[in-house]
Amino acid sequence: MAKDPYKIYLSEDEIPKQWYNVRADMKTDHRPILHPGTLKPVTVDDMSPIFCTKLAEQELNATDRFIDIPEPVRERYRMYRPSPLMRAYYLEKALDTPAKIYYKYEGGNTSGSHKLNSSIAQAYYAKEQGLKGVTTETGAGQWGTALSMACQYFGLDCKVFMVKCSYEQKPYRKEVIHTYDADIIPSPSDTTEVGRKILERFPGSTGSLGTAISEAVEYATTHDGYRYVLGSVLNQVLIHQSIIGIEAKAAMEKVDAYPDIVIGCAGGGSNLGGIMAPFMGDKLNGKANPYFIAVEPASCPSLTRGKFAYDFCDTGMVTPLAKMYTLGCGFIPSANHAGGLRYHGMSPILSQLYHDGFLDEARAVEQTAVFEAAELFAKVEGILPAPESSHAIRVAIDEAIRCRESGEAKTILFNLTGTGYFDLAAYKAYNEKTMSDYIPTDEDLARGFATIPKLPGIQE
Amino acid sequence: MAKDPYKIYLSEDEIPKQWYNVRADMKTDHRPILHPGTLKPVTVDDMSPIFCTKLAEQELNATDRFIDIPEPVRERYRMYRPSPLMRAYYLEKALDTPAKIYYKYEGGNTSGSHKLNSSIAQAYYAKEQGLKGVTTETGAGQWGTALSMACQYFGLDCKVFMVKCSYEQKPYRKEVIHTYDADIIPSPSDTTEVGRKILERFPGSTGSLGTAISEAVEYATTHDGYRYVLGSVLNQVLIHQSIIGIEAKAAMEKVDAYPDIVIGCAGGGSNLGGIMAPFMGDKLNGKANPYFIAVEPASCPSLTRGKFAYDFCDTGMVTPLAKMYTLGCGFIPSANHAGGLRYHGMSPILSQLYHDGFLDEARAVEQTAVFEAAELFAKVEGILPAPESSHAIRVAIDEAIRCRESGEAKTILFNLTGTGYFDLAAYKAYNEKTMSDYIPTDEDLARGFATIPKLPGIQE
Repeated sequence: MAKDPYKIYLSEDEIPKQWYNVRADMKTDHRPILHPGTLKPVTVDDMSPIFCTKLAEQELNATDRFIDIPEPVRERYRMYRPSPLMRAYYLEKALDTPAKIYYKYEGGNTSGSHKLNSSIAQAYYAKEQGLKGVTTETGAGQWGTALSMACQYFGLDCKVFMVKCSYEQKPYRKEVIHTYDADIIPSPSDTTEVGRKILERFPGSTGSLGTAISEAVEYATTHDGYRYVLGSVLNQVLIHQSIIGIEAKAAMEKVDAYPDIVIGCAGGGSNLGGIMAPFMGDKLNGKANPYFIAVEPASCPSLTRGKFAYDFCDTGMVTPLAKMYTLGCGFIPSANHAGGLRYHGMSPILSQLYHDGFLDEARAVEQTAVFEAAELFAKVEGILPAPESSHAIRVAIDEAIRCRESGEAKTILFNLTGTGYFDLAAYKAYNEKTMSDYIPTDEDLARGFATIPKLPGIQE
Repeated sequence: MAKDPYKIYLSEDEIPKQWYNVRADMKTDHRPILHPGTLKPVTVDDMSPIFCTKLAEQELNATDRFIDIPEPVRERYRMYRPSPLMRAYYLEKALDTPAKIYYKYEGGNTSGSHKLNSSIAQAYYAKEQGLKGVTTETGAGQWGTALSMACQYFGLDCKVFMVKCSYEQKPYRKEVIHTYDADIIPSPSDTTEVGRKILERFPGSTGSLGTAISEAVEYATTHDGYRYVLGSVLNQVLIHQSIIGIEAKAAMEKVDAYPDIVIGCAGGGSNLGGIMAPFMGDKLNGKANPYFIAVEPASCPSLTRGKFAYDFCDTGMVTPLAKMYTLGCGFIPSANHAGGLRYHGMSPILSQLYHDGFLDEARAVEQTAVFEAAELFAKVEGILPAPESSHAIRVAIDEAIRCRESGEAKTILFNLTGTGYFDLAAYKAYNEKTMSDYIPTDEDLARGFATIPKLPGIQE
């Protein structure tokens, strides 16, 4: 039998022509997104002042299984896609495992992550609508970089609210974003009403994704010709990111492989949602039964320790309400945690699939164990991974070790969505043993849960 | 006619099985490398205390046109090669040029550059010889990273002397190198005799490649089981880097293209030497007549303003002497210059080819013009380039603009060997307009030339 290549490429002509909307195949749809004022399901008209109209339609449309990728978006995808599916021969060897380990490598573009897949789509739709610009938030900086690139491609203004602790930890992220001519504002900031309020109450706040979202939304809704865009959590993002899984599945078919286990890290859900999409479709349609694992940081454990409840998507409580696994919109993750994945909630689609048992397992991992996996991976596979993606590496390694112990030759697929070139302060802390783990206490969680809105008659 | 893909890939099976040694086809061989003590041509025996024996053989062997790539080296190449040949459609469009612009993209691996092509080969030969470890110098940090990765792959100790100003400007480069378990020492250091002497004479020295080479050579020759390795300048490095050009030529054949102009930046010569190799072979053998341009920084202009003379390869005057274009082994480039390419000399092969007119032109460019080109390229092509590679981008853009003016649809090929993720302090300086140009005065050059050894009867 011929050995797989290390890198399994599709041709540019094989870039998918359609995204896949897993929601169309879900047995139970997620509960509707609610308008924060009326507490009624939001409509496209409700969302249009915040989001591009076309993206609002994608957000609310539960029924179209396949959605055409506009040709100008595919044209931009051709600059860096299809991304390779890698066979991790050296990792398998280092672990002495009979498992076959594959990873989809999305970090080869200058944004350093998979986020470009959605930012290109969102910037395209914003431009089509004749908008002047878009606003967003960014945590680790990957989404902000990806959006600044996409806005540059389509000629849009771009304002990025960056979580303050990341802004300070990652000075060079700012420079990449500046190179693409976007504005970057540390959040909480005094640019917005909600930012000023948070700064007044918590003058030393290091920020959170939830706060940055509130600021970006406020800016977009108070400035003509601007809309807000988001790089994770939303259904539209999972639709765009489905390209990862579709390509991965097509590449695996070329080497006659199919995953027994699919692993993705989970912050807001774009990562796992992307890689799992077509495989989850197979599972929902009874065609196959892969085992799905969501990996989250122990410091921000929305699936493993959160509540399945309606909550705001932001800290400032200005966004619509989604039924999701949440730590409470007021939960502020520890600044000790080095990577992204600091979001209080979880994609409504992933939340529902987890609640219904199709997303089989969520696992919380501690950051020193994650960096241990990252360094092993860097050494044997020659790619320095992002801390976020390294959560998936940690569990892929654990599963491969389990295969060594059981003798099972399982096929493991994980999503390596980013590179760690901008996370070297965290690698330094790990190498110098100044990195520590942080697990929220029950009291920490209770404080977060107290910020989940009561909503009598709606909240169960 | 079908449009070229954006990314022209070869398959892993098409990774070349042999490197190409352009020296075998040169009309005039470069003058022999001289032993610094005897001033006689060095032999493999002379070199063996410094270099791995196999690499010394490659260095001195002028006649083998093709050299087999050992299978374990090809196996490691498969992790990240073949690298893509890119068609710069968006750059062509931005410049409104009839020229077709292609670039070979070598920055997609974690070392961030083409240097891995040679470090893997050198580490392999060192391991084969049963050595314990290797020493080297690094300027911008790309070679040091590449060598640390390769040493990790083959289980060798690795000591990297890093030019002090780069060490301080690029703190995160160190962390990548640490991740691969190499030691990294800012140069000049007090680890070596030569380092201590330089520090005594110039206490505030920010270092140079020449000094770092002296230190690395001294360490290797005074420690059992160590040898010195070098990432540029040497014939062996040009042999290993020929894989860039061989792949580029094969990829161009797939789209029925052949370059009219081949452009590479030139510090020590690994970059241009790599991309040009098979095309220069065609020129030397009368099969084609591409126009070759070496691009160097105006701040360190060895080809455009240097002397073609025998000189030491290092500042400490401990290495053999090579006949090359040189600014003098005592020339210390301005710390103002942001990237690599700070070497006082130039590959003897490239020097001879330039002297004989086969390397058609050398062009010196100023760094603000280089960063202007880098930012345009990042914006339209979506890849943030290394400052070194951006020298080639600058000239590719200038040539494409010339084509717009003349209406000629020339085919331009350049080598994009690195990414700029570790050069964002320089991008920041450019964006904030605190970056300035520096051109050595005639007096600066005279001071450097005064350090070229006299060598009566040898030096013409």
